[in-house]
Amino acid sequence: MSSAWLLPEHIADVLPSEARRIEELRRTLLDVARSYGYELVMPPLLEYLESLLSGTGRALDLRTFKLVDQLSGRTMGVRADTTPQVARIDAHLLNRKGVTRLCYCGPVLHTTPSGLQATREPLQFGAEIYGHAGLEADLEAQELALEGLQRLGLGPLILDLADTRIVRALLTGVPVDAVVLDQLYTALAAKDNAVLAELTRDFPADSRAGLLTLTRLYGDAEVLAEAERVLPAHPGIQASLADLRWLVDRIRYAHPDVRIGFDFADLSGYAYYSGARFAIYAAGCSDALVRGGRYDEVGAVFGRNRPAAGFSTDLKELAGLARVQGTRAAIRAPWGQDESLRQVIRRLREQGETVVCVLPGHEHEVQEFECDRELVSANGQWAVQPL
Amino acid sequence: MSSAWLLPEHIADVLPSEARRIEELRRTLLDVARSYGYELVMPPLLEYLESLLSGTGRALDLRTFKLVDQLSGRTMGVRADTTPQVARIDAHLLNRKGVTRLCYCGPVLHTTPSGLQATREPLQFGAEIYGHAGLEADLEAQELALEGLQRLGLGPLILDLADTRIVRALLTGVPVDAVVLDQLYTALAAKDNAVLAELTRDFPADSRAGLLTLTRLYGDAEVLAEAERVLPAHPGIQASLADLRWLVDRIRYAHPDVRIGFDFADLSGYAYYSGARFAIYAAGCSDALVRGGRYDEVGAVFGRNRPAAGFSTDLKELAGLARVQGTRAAIRAPWGQDESLRQVIRRLREQGETVVCVLPGHEHEVQEFECDRELVSANGQWAVQPL
Repeated sequence: MSSAWLLPEHIADVLPSEARRIEELRRTLLDVARSYGYELVMPPLLEYLESLLSGTGRALDLRTFKLVDQLSGRTMGVRADTTPQVARIDAHLLNRKGVTRLCYCGPVLHTTPSGLQATREPLQFGAEIYGHAGLEADLEAQELALEGLQRLGLGPLILDLADTRIVRALLTGVPVDAVVLDQLYTALAAKDNAVLAELTRDFPADSRAGLLTLTRLYGDAEVLAEAERVLPAHPGIQASLADLRWLVDRIRYAHPDVRIGFDFADLSGYAYYSGARFAIYAAGCSDALVRGGRYDEVGAVFGRNRPAAGFSTDLKELAGLARVQGTRAAIRAPWGQDESLRQVIRRLREQGETVVCVLPGHEHEVQEFECDRELVSANGQWAVQPL
Repeated sequence: MSSAWLLPEHIADVLPSEARRIEELRRTLLDVARSYGYELVMPPLLEYLESLLSGTGRALDLRTFKLVDQLSGRTMGVRADTTPQVARIDAHLLNRKGVTRLCYCGPVLHTTPSGLQATREPLQFGAEIYGHAGLEADLEAQELALEGLQRLGLGPLILDLADTRIVRALLTGVPVDAVVLDQLYTALAAKDNAVLAELTRDFPADSRAGLLTLTRLYGDAEVLAEAERVLPAHPGIQASLADLRWLVDRIRYAHPDVRIGFDFADLSGYAYYSGARFAIYAAGCSDALVRGGRYDEVGAVFGRNRPAAGFSTDLKELAGLARVQGTRAAIRAPWGQDESLRQVIRRLREQGETVVCVLPGHEHEVQEFECDRELVSANGQWAVQPL
C-alpha cells in the first residue's frame, strides 16, 4: 500500500496555489460570458454512448472512456468534449426558435492525452451561439474568446483563421475512403507535401494542385490575399474566402492589438466543424489556448440542425499562463469562545477577509494563507494589527 | 437516432435557471470556506482503484464506476466521494506538520442512486481540517457548515449529532463477522428492535442491552442526558458522551437559533468515520443537507494517520432548497460595428451588466435573460432606457 498515493499518468491533483488561480479564471470567464448574454448550463459527465458520440467522428470515440450502466445494461461514455452535449440541450431541452447563447465549465476525461504534457482531465470552458447562420455569430464567438483571454491578462494574442469548407470543396466529387482521408488530413496538418503528392496521385489535377497549394498557405494576414489569388475559382472556395475577409476586416478594426494569421491546411480537432474555424495563440506558446468555429451540423442527430458557432478552452492550461493570482492575505486570530472575539471575526469574514483561527497548541505553525495581520486584544478591544 | 437525446436514469442536464442558482451557491460556499482559511484543492476525477478505495469500505466500492487505464492496463475508478482524495493530498502532497484546512467542489459519480430522487452525479462541496485531534476542529467544521447553509438562506436548521465510537465500544470483544455487522448497522438505522434482538441473541448481555437501548436514543437535546443516564459506564462511551456534551454546549451558545438533536443509532454513510458525527437538516426536509464528522483513520493507507474532521454536501440538492437566485436582468442592444455603440456596450459589460446584442434578423425573439432595458440612440448619443 506504500504506493497508494501514486496517480495515473497524465492525471494530477491541483494544489492550493494553482486551484486558486483556476477558480479565479473560471469566475472571470463565466462573468464575461454572462455579460454577453451567454447562459450557463451543466450537462452531465455521463451519457449513453450513442448520444454522446453521434456525428462526432472517430477521434472523439477513441478518446472517450466507456462504462456499463448498471441500471440499464447499456454502454455509457464519460464526456471527452462538451460541445455535442450543449447542442443536444439546445435542440431538445430549450428547443427555442431564436438565438440561444449557452456557456459551460466542467471537467472532461480523455482515455489518452493529446500531447506529452497534456492532462487527461482538462477543465473545459466553452461558449456557443445557436440559431444564427450569419457571420455575426462567428464574429461574436471570436470577440468573446479574445475578450475572455484579455481579461485574464493574456496577450499579445494571435488569431489564426481557417475554413474547413476549402478542403471539402477541393475534394468535391473525388472518391476518397475514410482511411485515406485521415492520412490526407494528417499530411495537410504536417504540411508534408511528399506524402500528400503520393496520396493525391490519382486525384483530378485541379483538386490535387489545390490541396498541394494549401500547405504553403499559412502565415500572417497577407496569406488571405494570396489564397484569393492562387486557389481555384470554385464557388464554395470563393464564398469561404469572402467570409474570412469579412471577419478579418472587422476583427482588425475592433482589435488592432490582435495579430491575425491563417493556416489553410489546419484541420485539427473534432470532425464537427462545418465552416470558418479559429484558434487563438499567445505569443511564445505553440499550443492554441482556444479553438472554435462554426459547426452547423452538430445538432443534426438530435433532430434539429441549427446553425452553431462557438469555442472551448482548457482552464488548467490557461492557469499556467494567465497573470491572475487570487490573494492569499489573511488575518491570524486566536481560538476562543469569547463573544466579542467571535463577533469581530464574523464581521471581518463578512467583509471578505480570510480569518484563520489558530487552534490550541498550533500557535507556531506556518499557514498556506499568508497571514500578514493579526487580531489582538488591547485595552479590552480586538484590533487588527500588521504582523 | 430519434432517442439520441435520452439520458440515463438518475442523470440530468442542469438548465440555465438551475445552473445559475448552483453557480451562486458554489461561489458563496467557496467564499465562506475561504474566509475561514480553507484552501481550495481539485483532486482528479480518476485514480487507480486501490488508492481511491483504500480503507473506505464496501459501500463506496459498489458505488464506484471502474475503468481500464489504456496507458497502464490497470483499473481506475471515477471518484464516488472526494474525502479520501483530500486525505491523500494532505498526507502526501502537502505533507505539512501543522493544521491544514482544505476545501473542494466538484462532481462525483455513483453507479447506483442513493434514493428514488437522487442524482448519480452529485456536485460535492466539502471542507476538511487536518492535524488537530481536539474538539475545536469538530466544532469549526460544524460551525462552517452551519454558516454556509445560513448564507444560502437555508433555515431554520437542525444539527443532529451522533458518535460512531459508542457502537464500537458496545461491540468491543464481541466477535461479529462483516455480514452480520452490516445487518446490525441496517437494523440500528431502521431502529428495528426485532431484527436487532435476533442478531444480538448470542452477544454478551451488556453489549446486547446497550445496542437495543440505542434505538430509542434519538430526538431533541434531552436525549444526551438520557444517554448519559442509561448507557453502560464503559470508559469509551463516557468519553464520547463528554465530547458531545462539550460540542452541544458551544453550539447552543454560539447558534441559539439552531435546533440540536441526537440519533445514537445513526451510522449511515461511509465507513471512515471514527468519532463524533453530525448531519444538518432543514426544517421539513427528511434528507440531511450536510453530513460530516471526524475521520482520523482516513489518511492511514497513505502512510500518515492524521487527525481529520470535515463535512460534505451536494450542491444540486441544496439548489432546490436555497433561496438564492442569480439575477437575470439584461440590456438589449442592437448589433453593429459603430465604434460609439461598441464602446458603450463594453463599458456596461465591464460594470457587470449583461448586454445581449440582437443579431440581424432576430429582432423579435424572446431571450432567456430578462431584458428589462434597451440601448437606444437618441440625438447621436447611446442611452439605456427601460423597456
